[in-house]
Amino acid sequence: MIMDKDQRDLEKRIDGIKQLKPSLYGHDFLLTWEKEEEDLRTIIEVASVLKEMRAANISPKVFDSGLAISNFRDNSTRTRFSFASASNLLGLAVQDLDEQKSQIAHGETVRETANMISFLSDFIGIRDDIFLGEGNKYMREVGAALDDGFENGVLPVRPGIINLQCDMDHPTQSMADMMHLISVFGSAENLKGKKLVMSWAYSPSYGKPMSVPQGIIALMSRFGMNIELAYPEGYDLIPEIVEIAVKNTGASGGSFRVSHSMEESMRDADIVYPKSWAPYHIMQARTELLRKADKEGLKELEKSCLANNAKFKDWEFDDDKLKLTKNGSALYMHCLPADISGVSCDRGEVSAAAFERYRVETYREAGFKPYVIAAMMLTNRFENPGEILSGIMRRNRRRVGTE
Amino acid sequence: MIMDKDQRDLEKRIDGIKQLKPSLYGHDFLLTWEKEEEDLRTIIEVASVLKEMRAANISPKVFDSGLAISNFRDNSTRTRFSFASASNLLGLAVQDLDEQKSQIAHGETVRETANMISFLSDFIGIRDDIFLGEGNKYMREVGAALDDGFENGVLPVRPGIINLQCDMDHPTQSMADMMHLISVFGSAENLKGKKLVMSWAYSPSYGKPMSVPQGIIALMSRFGMNIELAYPEGYDLIPEIVEIAVKNTGASGGSFRVSHSMEESMRDADIVYPKSWAPYHIMQARTELLRKADKEGLKELEKSCLANNAKFKDWEFDDDKLKLTKNGSALYMHCLPADISGVSCDRGEVSAAAFERYRVETYREAGFKPYVIAAMMLTNRFENPGEILSGIMRRNRRRVGTE
Amino acid sequence: MIMDKDQRDLEKRIDGIKQLKPSLYGHDFLLTWEKEEEDLRTIIEVASVLKEMRAANISPKVFDSGLAISNFRDNSTRTRFSFASASNLLGLAVQDLDEQKSQIAHGETVRETANMISFLSDFIGIRDDIFLGEGNKYMREVGAALDDGFENGVLPVRPGIINLQCDMDHPTQSMADMMHLISVFGSAENLKGKKLVMSWAYSPSYGKPMSVPQGIIALMSRFGMNIELAYPEGYDLIPEIVEIAVKNTGASGGSFRVSHSMEESMRDADIVYPKSWAPYHIMQARTELLRKADKEGLKELEKSCLANNAKFKDWEFDDDKLKLTKNGSALYMHCLPADISGVSCDRGEVSAAAFERYRVETYREAGFKPYVIAAMMLTNRFENPGEILSGIMRRNRRRVGTE
Repeated sequence: MIMDKDQRDLEKRIDGIKQLKPSLYGHDFLLTWEKEEEDLRTIIEVASVLKEMRAANISPKVFDSGLAISNFRDNSTRTRFSFASASNLLGLAVQDLDEQKSQIAHGETVRETANMISFLSDFIGIRDDIFLGEGNKYMREVGAALDDGFENGVLPVRPGIINLQCDMDHPTQSMADMMHLISVFGSAENLKGKKLVMSWAYSPSYGKPMSVPQGIIALMSRFGMNIELAYPEGYDLIPEIVEIAVKNTGASGGSFRVSHSMEESMRDADIVYPKSWAPYHIMQARTELLRKADKEGLKELEKSCLANNAKFKDWEFDDDKLKLTKNGSALYMHCLPADISGVSCDRGEVSAAAFERYRVETYREAGFKPYVIAAMMLTNRFENPGEILSGIMRRNRRRVGTE
Repeated sequence: MIMDKDQRDLEKRIDGIKQLKPSLYGHDFLLTWEKEEEDLRTIIEVASVLKEMRAANISPKVFDSGLAISNFRDNSTRTRFSFASASNLLGLAVQDLDEQKSQIAHGETVRETANMISFLSDFIGIRDDIFLGEGNKYMREVGAALDDGFENGVLPVRPGIINLQCDMDHPTQSMADMMHLISVFGSAENLKGKKLVMSWAYSPSYGKPMSVPQGIIALMSRFGMNIELAYPEGYDLIPEIVEIAVKNTGASGGSFRVSHSMEESMRDADIVYPKSWAPYHIMQARTELLRKADKEGLKELEKSCLANNAKFKDWEFDDDKLKLTKNGSALYMHCLPADISGVSCDRGEVSAAAFERYRVETYREAGFKPYVIAAMMLTNRFENPGEILSGIMRRNRRRVGTE
Repeated sequence: MIMDKDQRDLEKRIDGIKQLKPSLYGHDFLLTWEKEEEDLRTIIEVASVLKEMRAANISPKVFDSGLAISNFRDNSTRTRFSFASASNLLGLAVQDLDEQKSQIAHGETVRETANMISFLSDFIGIRDDIFLGEGNKYMREVGAALDDGFENGVLPVRPGIINLQCDMDHPTQSMADMMHLISVFGSAENLKGKKLVMSWAYSPSYGKPMSVPQGIIALMSRFGMNIELAYPEGYDLIPEIVEIAVKNTGASGGSFRVSHSMEESMRDADIVYPKSWAPYHIMQARTELLRKADKEGLKELEKSCLANNAKFKDWEFDDDKLKLTKNGSALYMHCLPADISGVSCDRGEVSAAAFERYRVETYREAGFKPYVIAAMMLTNRFENPGEILSGIMRRNRRRVGTE
């Protein structure tokens, strides 16, 4: 049985959730910057309660049956398992939709397939991050098809869509990262005034999506932090999304600046997130070439991009850079897997020594993602998430055992 | 909570099911023409009740655990999801059996594998539609192996087999189509005297199975409809199955005729089903070549078949042909995906305008399939399906929620 | 409803389990020879009760949610389905981890992946039997990573690992085989003094793992049987594991001898297990070549190994050899699929006639595996398996039905 103190604590938190007025019910989760602060707080609170429930052996299953479809148009291990875990926790069975990889399919094919797989489905999780200007658009096209199907009586329920990474954002990652920050710093309030450096880092690989750095600056800028975005000249992110981050810091009482020196950016940082990405203009060129199926051109682009990356091998996060941060002990974050020098590659985003200091922290960081996804599901399907959580407490069903 | 009126309506329908005396218990569902009319009516009624239950948030889960094995020896998206949805609705977990595609395996391998995967399985859904004379035979071989295993105490339960499309029939499709017709026309009785045209249609692809047109004429002919089978000369279906349809219409008070003009056939039609297939003699030749693994021969055959198809590009269903039907508004049906001219191909089975008129209808048509499969499962495992449905009502478990 | 007599019988067996003091709680199941006799007896008893429960339509589901991860680094059908069945029986959803096949990955990749997939997982089943000296080592590396993650608060639960076949042992196979022997001979006690021949047999295939014969001699030698290990000279198993079997027979009151004549070995045998394997020195050479990715060398090795195998085509188990056994009716065993002469190959491990005599027996033998795996799971997660089984009886939930 759950301890009385824990139970009271959980019920107190659930009462807090009942006070929140999110606008999440019936809405897809595609971009954090389309959501209200109340929405984000609700998801973080619900995710946190679900995590505690599971730790206390309380089963939060709210679906007796139903499918959660995973549509991975790019490889994934950790997000795939997070999605599967979240679905399973709430009672849904995962069914994979295996499409030809990285296709650009639109129109009737998308509309029809979206309906055909959804007759008894409650959620569709989509990863589509290869083509610039396509991933998020594809999700919206699926969403429109589902609206159409639901309105026309084809679908008994409008399945919710969860963005599992697109060309613009990676909201399940950034929200999990936010939960990690809250857990490390004690509260969202404590993050005010903290300096977070989202820095480009060297990697011998090419074509890493921009969605993580974009997602991080766009989300973290809403909590009053001082955001510093560091990258070698030319390694820009999508300008419109940087603009959102700039506006957010203005509104939340933080600040935003761009730096072109990894070292400079590290000074007095509270939090550092060194992570490689392919620059915007390369992604644009790549998408154009992919669209034309120009294999030669793609090879050339990769070659030149890697050659350019190689000029910035000193953009590796190591103990020397760590020493520059606040008290020499900023929190290092990464979405994993990191390119670790001497471990997963000759030279990469982070030195082995620096990574090892924070290895367990990065694992904990990743551990929030299943609960973030489950919270996105719960708040999409239940208008009053606090009430359903209370129902789970009252019902008091064990996750493991015979009672 | 479910509305009292809905509940009374559901209970009335369930009472009706209790009056039926099907012979489905413990029998595989392989071909509609092996089943009694009472069997088909029972499945349609049970499927219909399951659909309403789910819409009313009543969970019809009757398995607390158990596997449903899907064995797709040909590609599938919609039937795969329908099978997964049906299994999940009743409480079974889907486990895929991945075999080398399109193999012709017989003897000990089939017998042994059938038993090895079935120790804790309740159903095996099989799609095997590539080889003429093989698919249905394979299903029966699996069935005999399961009988043997069950009789010898190897298997605690004899898993039921559901034909998810073979060389002869596609019963989950035709039964879903029948439910759609009943839904559109109000009742099975209302279908008496209606003219249904199962017509070949042009497609730039080759080797489409005959199981859908065969399944449609063999099933719809049992409900007193006037069936017209239209195709260019040479595009025959398996003669024995056409013979079944002819006999059925005789017994049910309908009629059956063959036409070699798509246009002529459309006159005064109430229902039209324009769909491409590869002719019987081509399928025979193809199976022979596949058996010999004669790659050159297969290429040649495909070439000559496509060239012959191209003579019949005017076998496209369009608004002009629609105008010829009863009141210019026959119900258009398709098992999807359709080859839509100017959408999925240059020229295909149906014009974009004609398809768009019925697009939502074809989606609704497809939406019955998960419930047909679930009904096949329920009637296979429970001698009195009405009783088990009453048990579901009494138990009153929600599909979504905490109660 | 379950019969009262059956129920009393089940409760009596469960009372017996409560008397046992296994050390299985929280421990991975990697090698039978690391386990105490009490451990093995407990697993066999629990597996047996679970099998009877399911036959009596009692659902032993003890997980309301949770993932069971299957990590197959080599092909599998029957063990894959056994793992899926066991997981499903207890309430867990299977999630496959698809890695590049047969890789040797160590260090940070293994440690990180092990944690990333385990946030909401209860078990990881691993098959890794390609590389000598690697498979079991890999499982321990995963285990150490999970310990690390659990101790550091990354994982809420330490998932248990189940060896689904490695380079050394195949414990779910040998334990299922032991259950089969107990079922055929009436009790474990009745096995004392019986002669079991684990014999090499000819196969036209190459590179079959040694884990089955090793697992069989290491386990069966603990029950007072007279073990005879027969193989052509040069076809040795790993010497350290043969040594374990020798010691075990000493301790259990049985005997152990090696023979180089299949015929001689069969005399007066009570149980025969004719099964092909690749010899130790070939496996060593193969692992070395695989490590160097020496494709030419591998081809050469395969060729020479097959040529050597061909010298021993008379190591086929047939009716003549059967006649040599005790009363001409020893129990034939095989882990399946067997290479059956004239059925799955021209000439193989067993003649068609001899196999057919025992075909159904080999199916029954295989049917214990899902319950062995489920028992390994149950005893890993519940300190007092007898208590949890009593809880299942008290709860009295049907596997099939609405009650």
